[in-house]
Amino acid sequence: MNAEILAVGTELLLGDIVNTNAQFIARELSAAGINVYYHSVVGDNPIRLSDCLNLALSRSDLIVMTGGLGPTYDDLTKETVAKALDLQLVLHQESLDRIAGFFSRMGRTMTENNKKQAMMPEGATVFTNDWGTAPACGVEKDGKVVVMLPGPPREMQPIFTTHVAPFLTRFSDGIIVSRSVRIIGLGESAVEDRLHDMMLDSTNPTVAPYAKEGEVLLRVTAKAETQEKARSMIDPLVEEIRETFGEYVYGVDVPSLQHVVVEMLRDRDMKLSAAESCTAGLLTKRLTEVPGASDVLDCGVTAYANRIKMELLHVTADTLRRYGAVSEECAVEMATGVRELAGADIGVSITGIAGPDGGTEEKPVGLVHIAVSGGAAVMTKELTVGRGGAEREFVRSIAALNALDLVRRYLLKYES
Amino acid sequence: MNAEILAVGTELLLGDIVNTNAQFIARELSAAGINVYYHSVVGDNPIRLSDCLNLALSRSDLIVMTGGLGPTYDDLTKETVAKALDLQLVLHQESLDRIAGFFSRMGRTMTENNKKQAMMPEGATVFTNDWGTAPACGVEKDGKVVVMLPGPPREMQPIFTTHVAPFLTRFSDGIIVSRSVRIIGLGESAVEDRLHDMMLDSTNPTVAPYAKEGEVLLRVTAKAETQEKARSMIDPLVEEIRETFGEYVYGVDVPSLQHVVVEMLRDRDMKLSAAESCTAGLLTKRLTEVPGASDVLDCGVTAYANRIKMELLHVTADTLRRYGAVSEECAVEMATGVRELAGADIGVSITGIAGPDGGTEEKPVGLVHIAVSGGAAVMTKELTVGRGGAEREFVRSIAALNALDLVRRYLLKYES
Repeated sequence: MNAEILAVGTELLLGDIVNTNAQFIARELSAAGINVYYHSVVGDNPIRLSDCLNLALSRSDLIVMTGGLGPTYDDLTKETVAKALDLQLVLHQESLDRIAGFFSRMGRTMTENNKKQAMMPEGATVFTNDWGTAPACGVEKDGKVVVMLPGPPREMQPIFTTHVAPFLTRFSDGIIVSRSVRIIGLGESAVEDRLHDMMLDSTNPTVAPYAKEGEVLLRVTAKAETQEKARSMIDPLVEEIRETFGEYVYGVDVPSLQHVVVEMLRDRDMKLSAAESCTAGLLTKRLTEVPGASDVLDCGVTAYANRIKMELLHVTADTLRRYGAVSEECAVEMATGVRELAGADIGVSITGIAGPDGGTEEKPVGLVHIAVSGGAAVMTKELTVGRGGAEREFVRSIAALNALDLVRRYLLKYES
Repeated sequence: MNAEILAVGTELLLGDIVNTNAQFIARELSAAGINVYYHSVVGDNPIRLSDCLNLALSRSDLIVMTGGLGPTYDDLTKETVAKALDLQLVLHQESLDRIAGFFSRMGRTMTENNKKQAMMPEGATVFTNDWGTAPACGVEKDGKVVVMLPGPPREMQPIFTTHVAPFLTRFSDGIIVSRSVRIIGLGESAVEDRLHDMMLDSTNPTVAPYAKEGEVLLRVTAKAETQEKARSMIDPLVEEIRETFGEYVYGVDVPSLQHVVVEMLRDRDMKLSAAESCTAGLLTKRLTEVPGASDVLDCGVTAYANRIKMELLHVTADTLRRYGAVSEECAVEMATGVRELAGADIGVSITGIAGPDGGTEEKPVGLVHIAVSGGAAVMTKELTVGRGGAEREFVRSIAALNALDLVRRYLLKYES
């Protein structure tokens, strides 16, 4: 089956936003064994949209569209698809009820134009949108399949995973299974160097590395007739990768490092507390992305000012004077200070220079000190993110990631 | 002049990388007064590439292509363009000398296939690549212009800015200028309802709404011969929008709400401190995205546990027992508590139920209480963030956004 992706939206066309949806959908379709031959973007213009859709229908079996499902007059996707496939738009009562329910929960009045979101091409399979108001749908006619998804990635991605992927399995020939090995502390090229033979040899299963911010994801993929068969092809490779990379592997098929750290703390019935300077809450924000993080995190302190570092965390004036706020010594006192303040088992701290200002020859932008203080030991780590050339948000993100990793390594070393 | 962007590369098609080039080029073309009507992506396949190019030539005056200029057999862009426009490929000696020089500087031998990079469609304007080996070029024939750029963004972007933008000025008939009005507290459809006439009437300038998470951006765009003329067409409309929406407008041409809040605090020489429960650092994280936020933020406390709310922020046991941690009363005590703890001018607090668990009939997932406590007054706000399944990260994001807005409204009301 050959597919293409058609995104609708003037904000994409003008470059206001980047088309990450195309990347997400392309990966998912490829993983499902569906060939993707074209991506296109067109604006909210009825004639050009109609032309693009007709071209797509002439050359592809499956068209996955994003955008143009909203309530306003320039949202035209369903209208255009219905016309191209010679279908009527009919009211989908269940969707209308959901949209009305949304407005009533928000204490707002549903305006008339919102009803448009509940109109669907006749015979469509409706995909419930639990992440926004516009429902998605798929229609099949004369051997062509058109899937229509909302534009916001936060809605599109979960709808795709939950509803569209299962809907599409009937059009694919074979099952594709992937497992993801997550590695932290090695760069992509170092990972690739060690894997070279394994990657060159691989056709089915395949091993592909993806560089993510500060970490590397290795995706191992196999295609087979059954789930079990694919798994039996993948699992030995995953084990080999685990052995090759040891403690650099923080998990397989896990959503994120913070999920692993929360899980490890919960298994040990331990409480963490955090003291942050340059990251200013990013670390606790990430930990609490994990539902149930309240089991392991009581308290975080953003100590941006030296006064707060001293008053709340009991960093000494002497340490600040002799070593400065961005130093191993200060990081250790912050970690111990927040542990004692919160009565927690472990304290973790981050202090660094996120930039763009504040760097010096001796302490450049990107310098970060991290410490973990527990009953058993104190561990520290010094990073220089981007050798002085990194952007503020990147420095902060890498700092928070490495702090999570230092907690993980502390638990592996002293609490296993 | 109408343009489209055609990217060539299987790694884009499969979703290994995201097409940021399209965004960059689209913005640049729009800013230059050139209408962009389509983006496409096609793989390194000669027939499909040729089809896509011919389609582009049939519907657009300018085609900007990226990728496929490298030395390998599957780099086909120039060959395909030459064929479509019925031009020969000829050796560009200066380019060949540069490529040979590059290899000699690297101490490497230039392989035969690298010469391919110096072959250009006859009559092409060659754009020197000072950031890589493959030179770029532009050709004009029969009223059609095709620009060919290398795929890597760190080569493509400087070549575009340095060479292509000046090359294109001769094809453009005016300048496009946009201003962005940012609105918080009203939904997209409510904004559109009030703007309906203004939007329908508009052709030049145009007014277009974009829904962002929890806010709405109105883009006002005009095309004119000069910057000044375009501005004089836009500015009255911007003023009209400001008057229509009053305090809902938090800024024009500003990067974000946190930038506005940091700026307002700095103007007033005031310090903010934050106490966060369900957002757990997200609010301070956002504030500190703004460089120089340390001028206005000293301290934040993530008080996830009730014990920390009591010990650090002096929320009373009585309040927690009578009203619970997610209540207006608790939010007020948290805001006042963190203000006193930090010795700040203003305290802001967030307490809510982010989900997925912890909701009850009376206090559902998505319920959030926010408070601002300052010398002049206490302000509070209750939100119910909910779209059926109210996703955890969405609840937290909207909560942080509304807390920033409540600080803004406090400053407008009591400190202007």
